[in-house]
Amino acid sequence: MVPAVSADCSSTSFTPLVVLELASDTKQEAIAWLLSRIRDPHQNGGIELLVEQLGLGDGGSEKENPNLFLVGAKWQRLLSGAEEVGLFKEFSDGSMRGFTCANKHNFKHFEGDGDSFLSMAECQYIIKHELDTLRAKDETHVPGHPQAKLYPGKSIIRRLLSKGVLIQVFPLHEKEELKRLSYSWYQKIKLSFQPLDDIRRYYGEGQALYFGFLEYFTFALVPMALIGVPYYLFDWENYDKYVVFAVFNLVWCTVILELWKRFSTSLAYSWGTLSRKKAFEEPRPGFHGVLGFNPVTGREEPLYSNTKRQLCVYLVSLPFVLLCLYLSLYVMMIYFLMEGWALSVHDEEPTFWTRVLLFIPSIIYAVVIEIMNLVYRYAAEFLTEWENHRLESSYQNQLILKVLVFNFFNCFASLFYIAFAMQDMALLRQSLATLLITSQILNQIMEAFLPYWLQRRRNKKMMRKVQKRKAVAEAELPLAEQVRLEADMSTYLGTFDDYLELFLLFGYVSLFSCVYPLAAVLVVLNNITEVYSDAFKMCRVFKRPFSEPAANIGVWQLAFEAMSVIAVVTNCSLIGMSPQVKAYFPESETQLILWTVAIEHGLLAFKFILSFIIPDVPKHIQIKLSRLEFESLEALKKKKMLEASELTKGIQ
Amino acid sequence: MVPAVSADCSSTSFTPLVVLELASDTKQEAIAWLLSRIRDPHQNGGIELLVEQLGLGDGGSEKENPNLFLVGAKWQRLLSGAEEVGLFKEFSDGSMRGFTCANKHNFKHFEGDGDSFLSMAECQYIIKHELDTLRAKDETHVPGHPQAKLYPGKSIIRRLLSKGVLIQVFPLHEKEELKRLSYSWYQKIKLSFQPLDDIRRYYGEGQALYFGFLEYFTFALVPMALIGVPYYLFDWENYDKYVVFAVFNLVWCTVILELWKRFSTSLAYSWGTLSRKKAFEEPRPGFHGVLGFNPVTGREEPLYSNTKRQLCVYLVSLPFVLLCLYLSLYVMMIYFLMEGWALSVHDEEPTFWTRVLLFIPSIIYAVVIEIMNLVYRYAAEFLTEWENHRLESSYQNQLILKVLVFNFFNCFASLFYIAFAMQDMALLRQSLATLLITSQILNQIMEAFLPYWLQRRRNKKMMRKVQKRKAVAEAELPLAEQVRLEADMSTYLGTFDDYLELFLLFGYVSLFSCVYPLAAVLVVLNNITEVYSDAFKMCRVFKRPFSEPAANIGVWQLAFEAMSVIAVVTNCSLIGMSPQVKAYFPESETQLILWTVAIEHGLLAFKFILSFIIPDVPKHIQIKLSRLEFESLEALKKKKMLEASELTKGIQ
Repeated sequence: MVPAVSADCSSTSFTPLVVLELASDTKQEAIAWLLSRIRDPHQNGGIELLVEQLGLGDGGSEKENPNLFLVGAKWQRLLSGAEEVGLFKEFSDGSMRGFTCANKHNFKHFEGDGDSFLSMAECQYIIKHELDTLRAKDETHVPGHPQAKLYPGKSIIRRLLSKGVLIQVFPLHEKEELKRLSYSWYQKIKLSFQPLDDIRRYYGEGQALYFGFLEYFTFALVPMALIGVPYYLFDWENYDKYVVFAVFNLVWCTVILELWKRFSTSLAYSWGTLSRKKAFEEPRPGFHGVLGFNPVTGREEPLYSNTKRQLCVYLVSLPFVLLCLYLSLYVMMIYFLMEGWALSVHDEEPTFWTRVLLFIPSIIYAVVIEIMNLVYRYAAEFLTEWENHRLESSYQNQLILKVLVFNFFNCFASLFYIAFAMQDMALLRQSLATLLITSQILNQIMEAFLPYWLQRRRNKKMMRKVQKRKAVAEAELPLAEQVRLEADMSTYLGTFDDYLELFLLFGYVSLFSCVYPLAAVLVVLNNITEVYSDAFKMCRVFKRPFSEPAANIGVWQLAFEAMSVIAVVTNCSLIGMSPQVKAYFPESETQLILWTVAIEHGLLAFKFILSFIIPDVPKHIQIKLSRLEFESLEALKKKKMLEASELTKGIQ
Repeated sequence: MVPAVSADCSSTSFTPLVVLELASDTKQEAIAWLLSRIRDPHQNGGIELLVEQLGLGDGGSEKENPNLFLVGAKWQRLLSGAEEVGLFKEFSDGSMRGFTCANKHNFKHFEGDGDSFLSMAECQYIIKHELDTLRAKDETHVPGHPQAKLYPGKSIIRRLLSKGVLIQVFPLHEKEELKRLSYSWYQKIKLSFQPLDDIRRYYGEGQALYFGFLEYFTFALVPMALIGVPYYLFDWENYDKYVVFAVFNLVWCTVILELWKRFSTSLAYSWGTLSRKKAFEEPRPGFHGVLGFNPVTGREEPLYSNTKRQLCVYLVSLPFVLLCLYLSLYVMMIYFLMEGWALSVHDEEPTFWTRVLLFIPSIIYAVVIEIMNLVYRYAAEFLTEWENHRLESSYQNQLILKVLVFNFFNCFASLFYIAFAMQDMALLRQSLATLLITSQILNQIMEAFLPYWLQRRRNKKMMRKVQKRKAVAEAELPLAEQVRLEADMSTYLGTFDDYLELFLLFGYVSLFSCVYPLAAVLVVLNNITEVYSDAFKMCRVFKRPFSEPAANIGVWQLAFEAMSVIAVVTNCSLIGMSPQVKAYFPESETQLILWTVAIEHGLLAFKFILSFIIPDVPKHIQIKLSRLEFESLEALKKKKMLEASELTKGIQ
């Protein structure tokens, strides 16, 4: 549903959905060409959208970029666009079906002209898709910009973006809707689930799945937290009980990950992304290569040898990652040396300053790790860019993999060292607590409050500027100002960092759960605040992101499952190393280890069997999916029989 | 291609494809009803096939069953049937596409009327499919057989089979084609690959994939056999070298299983079964339940609660299987006791008779195992039947799983006991060799030569009977006699036992490869003879089976992969237990075990990463598949645009 925008901006006679910001030095002929291409009807290779230049702010200063354009579309156009992108909507019989204009009236919630059928996020997604499919015809370059070459059939918007002519494309916020959403999401203090459907309607499926996962994960950890509390309160140093706790944890982790698959399938089904066919992915903007013909589409596009890319990955990227891991290990060893040195100084002559000294190595190490993470992130992005992946999805997967491994190593290497090389459980517990708590606090500050503070300053500046001329309340900021304000907001870079944070938290909970049962409690508490701070930052700090259709959390499911496998290994070894368990095998350490290994293998096998037995798709959705498939097969059969009978009639 | 059958059977004026054998006491009205249902045109609910009664053998004796019927079809009917079952054939551009009558002339090898376009196996498959889809209309029971109740919409053939009115349905052999195939397959002694395409054309994809896998598996074992030979020849008791051998084996097993996936995908693509959509599976004949409406198809059919079935599986079948495993363990322990006793008797007073006594326990154990396997097989079939699975495929999977686990246990439990409980490597090697060689010899005899001998006796009897009257050479047996001969041949029960045998052989090779490197050599030799004996039994011993479309080897791939995982565990422990490796860690057994476990985990991780990295579908087939998908998407788009423009025209 799109609220009627008060037409305080005289030039816009339609609902603005998406903003295009061109560089302020763009030539007028380029602008005119682009606008006409966007407005042109399909027959002339256009995309039939509406587009208007945004008027300068009242009494606009010269510093403002005049080349802001608002894009919208007629309802008919949006509906046909919905069919083109293959949107799934709820049918009158309650099943999810691909929307088609031909039988639009059979879809639920389709009333009248259907002007409230599509959510604004869906409209914006459609507009983005249409803009992306705007292809060059016979132009050789952008008019007025000879350096921006065009090739027939290539996306114009992508070329303009990569050449810096187009600065950004972003969808507009809906003030009313946003206010309602943020109220039900984080401002209303009450015990309730997040409004996932509203989040999905406003931000799209990718975002909603992240928040769904965050919430699910939090609830899933509650049993572990509840069981962990008495261990902490009564200081149960009895490893017999820890064994029970650890085994419960390991099985629980597997179960919750499997159940999440089922839950996310249900969500994706009800949002219509589960059965949606992926369109053929176009090469990503940065992809380069020798021009040739794509063997699949037959279109002319850059080609790049797969073997060459594989060589890059295995001969350059992989060794580089390993080198970085080694370096990180080296830094960790220096940290332990420093720590040992500080401890010995403090032991020799304990003063206030030596007590301060005790903290220095940890602080230095934490700072160095942060710096290494940052530098590595840039290096990983550079390398993955250099590997020249054709598809955005494989680029993302490769990047996630690289960053994941390094972050995992950086976060947990010192804990592994303490646990298995030093075998100091008290220190392990202490380090775990310190790392967990500091990382949580730092994250919340860096992620939400710092950007919010920056944004607030910017807001105020803008308000002051506007109020100089008119006396308006913040809520009634005119459209032109609102668009400029949003254009200045930070861009949300996707769910990557959010998932990474959850992944590391999951590591803290699961890897060493048997020595620090309180970790689950801390993570649950953190996650509850995380919901609020993430919701807050989505609503107040960032530009609205384009909605991203997603049917699952993708490669992260795999990452979490891998973590749960590693957790089995670490927990079994920790328990095997504990003095209480050792006491059961006083005469032979060999027996102890063999038993530990046997139990570990048993648990691993159990995990695999469990994940095999629990079906990924809930029964009722399976039935719905096969019913749809059955119906389409039957329809096909019927159609063929009709054709055949017509053919016979024709012959007769 | 179907060879013209010499019309020596006067009553058949068409090419007979499939034989229906009704019970000799079937009522005439039932026969007449069935034949008319088969011959009826589609409009009247028939399937438009041709069917003739087979004349009695020349001077047919009274003992012969007169109710044998030959089923065939016109070419046009077979082609439309090919479209109905969704057959994929090679298109003129070299890609594989679903056959449609509308553009039949665009398919390769389609000449004239297309009377040589479909292979006879395909025709028989189509006929079988058509027979299966022959459904009851408003009949309440089979005419003349009130006990054989019919329900509207249920398959008639299945009901007749389950009520014993229909004894069997089987496709006919093609004498000429069979002679040619058997010559190129096993009679011609030369080094060459099996004629997989011919096998597929004659027996269908399921069979061809089995033989393809058998051949692939044999070749894949050659490197292991080659490396194993010097170990045996030079009696290298050095475990350093064994480590190298074992590690090579473990990695090699993973690689060959992954590569097989790619190879079988290529085969399935070229045979057109890869992209073929599975039709909706009907409930299997034995399935029973309360009549209700299928939530997917909306048809009335028996329904059975899933929960109830799950309870059966987990509360009855699983405990039963575990009990059987325990029993098998118990029998094994008795065997070892007997063996120990025989050994002690022999050691006390070695005579000829005590030496004979030494073999007695093994023989008894082998016989008992065989009996247990047989009894268990029946029990497993009974239990799986009782679990009341709705689909044939899930029935098969459950049965395979049950039988697999028990056979694995029976075959390898004693070896595991010798290896890990007794830690007697010499005995392990000896037992492994004995078990492997005896099982190979027994298998070949039981599988091919015994049935062949029985069949030969039957053949001779038939020939004598015929020759009493006419003097004909074997090759010129008249059709009627030929049909009766084939009706008496044993029925091939599917690839289950063949795969099971390969699976157990793979176990002998991989589980203990580091103590008996010669196993690979033996298995290679066995497989070469296995190719010949299996080919021989398919061509000469069994009725022709209906071709079974298959895109992969299904659950067996999983079974082989599971075996290769277990092999990592066993080999690592064996090497860890070897005295040579123990000598490296003279001071601490703990260190040794920890290293062993670490290496084992590393190998397992490596296996998983490897199976993740190697793509299951070769690049060139991926491209072909996505091209097809892309084209169909484009066609859909074009169609929609055409419809839209027509709509606009209509409005104007």
